[in-house]
Amino acid sequence: MTYSKVKYEGLKKLCDIVFEKFGFSPEDSGTITDVLLLSDLFGIESHGIQRLVKYYSEIKNGLIKVDSKPKIIKETPVSAILDAQAGMGQLAGRKAMNMAIEKAKTSGMGMVVVRNSNHYGIAGYYAKMAEEEGLLGISMTNSPAVIIPTFGKDAMLGTNPIAISMPAKPYPFLMDIATSVVTRGKIEVYNKRHEPLPLGLALDKNGEDTEDPYDILYNLPKKLGGGLVPLGGSKELTGGHKGYGLALAVEIFTAILSGGITGNYVTLQGSSGSGTCHYFCAVDYSIFGDKNSIEDKLSEYLNELRNSKKAKGALRIYTHGEKEIESYKDKMENGIPMNEVTLKEIDEICKYFNIKTSEYIKKFPTDNI
Amino acid sequence: MTYSKVKYEGLKKLCDIVFEKFGFSPEDSGTITDVLLLSDLFGIESHGIQRLVKYYSEIKNGLIKVDSKPKIIKETPVSAILDAQAGMGQLAGRKAMNMAIEKAKTSGMGMVVVRNSNHYGIAGYYAKMAEEEGLLGISMTNSPAVIIPTFGKDAMLGTNPIAISMPAKPYPFLMDIATSVVTRGKIEVYNKRHEPLPLGLALDKNGEDTEDPYDILYNLPKKLGGGLVPLGGSKELTGGHKGYGLALAVEIFTAILSGGITGNYVTLQGSSGSGTCHYFCAVDYSIFGDKNSIEDKLSEYLNELRNSKKAKGALRIYTHGEKEIESYKDKMENGIPMNEVTLKEIDEICKYFNIKTSEYIKKFPTDNI
Repeated sequence: MTYSKVKYEGLKKLCDIVFEKFGFSPEDSGTITDVLLLSDLFGIESHGIQRLVKYYSEIKNGLIKVDSKPKIIKETPVSAILDAQAGMGQLAGRKAMNMAIEKAKTSGMGMVVVRNSNHYGIAGYYAKMAEEEGLLGISMTNSPAVIIPTFGKDAMLGTNPIAISMPAKPYPFLMDIATSVVTRGKIEVYNKRHEPLPLGLALDKNGEDTEDPYDILYNLPKKLGGGLVPLGGSKELTGGHKGYGLALAVEIFTAILSGGITGNYVTLQGSSGSGTCHYFCAVDYSIFGDKNSIEDKLSEYLNELRNSKKAKGALRIYTHGEKEIESYKDKMENGIPMNEVTLKEIDEICKYFNIKTSEYIKKFPTDNI
Repeated sequence: MTYSKVKYEGLKKLCDIVFEKFGFSPEDSGTITDVLLLSDLFGIESHGIQRLVKYYSEIKNGLIKVDSKPKIIKETPVSAILDAQAGMGQLAGRKAMNMAIEKAKTSGMGMVVVRNSNHYGIAGYYAKMAEEEGLLGISMTNSPAVIIPTFGKDAMLGTNPIAISMPAKPYPFLMDIATSVVTRGKIEVYNKRHEPLPLGLALDKNGEDTEDPYDILYNLPKKLGGGLVPLGGSKELTGGHKGYGLALAVEIFTAILSGGITGNYVTLQGSSGSGTCHYFCAVDYSIFGDKNSIEDKLSEYLNELRNSKKAKGALRIYTHGEKEIESYKDKMENGIPMNEVTLKEIDEICKYFNIKTSEYIKKFPTDNI
């Protein structure tokens, strides 16, 4: 695939304008763009601005309601449940995590669940919102079913990421992991490159190991069987039941607690929204002790992990979030690599809205990725 | 290995008496026995009554202080932090989860962390305590370092289990998973049977795949390098960094939040206790909506998972806790299979305390396991 680099500032302005053209307020457009671009800056292309065209088609199909505001259904000093009313996931997500943060600041912790929402971007964005406020943050979301339970052959659970973040120096802890071995996006990359899948990532419609990425992507939306393997693989010997359990736990925290729908029903409701459910939690750990000592202890331990002995041939041990923060710095300075297909899609949407793309972004060449 | 079956009732009485002889009050002895025997009844021999001899030697070495009571260091309506003062993990664990449960009942949720404790048995026991009170329960613990970070070769994190439980019909959801591919106990089984380890479970002291269980078990306590691979394996391709992240998150929730010590220091403090740290959380989900509807929805989804289509050759799809509950019923009725080595160890301890083992338990033969 061919990539060009574009500068963050121009891309940010352009996307803000495009989302305003979609019908969102300037403030909401800013929020959506922020979530998407953080993903690109972190080097997670699948959840970044390449989603623009998908969101636009979902808005046109009525799956995403531009005018919907998240509605508070029930609230306590430590909790809330929101109905996103089929609005943009990023808007419900930001509101929900802000509520969790406020509750953590006044009550020690806050837990907010959201039902009837849509795709909310990277889970890590919301966990990091809490981290930036000096709190421990957790976020999870369900999604259309792609993970197969151990011994099964039908996808019954979303990729169901778990994100956890906490302040530390010089890098915060920021883990954001799908509970499958790889994300659906990874399968798409193998498919685009016409490369066989390594065995152990996905199963075919009989529930058997497959190397064919096209087959998986064809069968999944048609519910013909097959899909992704949970973290740990398809067998109990390698711990597949553990990844399956974690994906199931995410369905509990998101869909079950919020009274929403589980991954096996997400996006099957027709025009009344995808039904995606989210979970947000913030903890002010000063309820347990001195914040500075707690943060220092975490920084020290993360440092010990990074400095522990390397396996033969390994150059570096990472802690979670380190790669993303390094990618962020690099891309803010040197530009964000954009797939030519994505750039073309953005350009077409801009033309439709009479926006001159070249006024905002200038492409400059980069090595192919 | 040769196994005999013994009846639960007699074993329970015998163990209660043995723990009283160790110096615990009748109430505390009952608690410790309950935690251990639930593990045996669930079919998890490694965390059951076979630990008796290890606990006894830790008591004699002063690692476990019989007279220590868990001390409340700080408390809010939603949280508490306890110092176990090097007492038995089960006693601190039960007190902490009971506090989390009380806080959940009055404030909606409760989070209690414990430092300076010892081995607390199966994490699932504590999550299930909340489930039995109609709450969502979570428990985690750190433990002596056995998991190697991705690209590393030294064990830096405990097996660090995560247990989550919530009421459902006919079985509750009860997940209890180590964040390594397999537990240290599994490696011990391969070693006792003189069988080679399947590749992908553990690394040798150079950080390379190994089939030698003896080597792993020899190197770990001596800190010579090597250990268990995190859930997802030793490579990023198979998601090893995800299991590493989960094990690290458990260190954060247990050791970092409680101001305790991380897995790489657990049991290295000499006679001042192992320094194990735990985490307990209970959530009264009526803060989000009607409890019955929430539980019905979970029961329905778990049922859908169990009834979803099986992979070729597979007979049954399980949900988490199902195997354990079935094992519990079977063993309560038909007896608990006990390893002859464990029975001999118990008998020796009983002789020392002038307890006549045969008055409490009668062995009857079973198929070898």
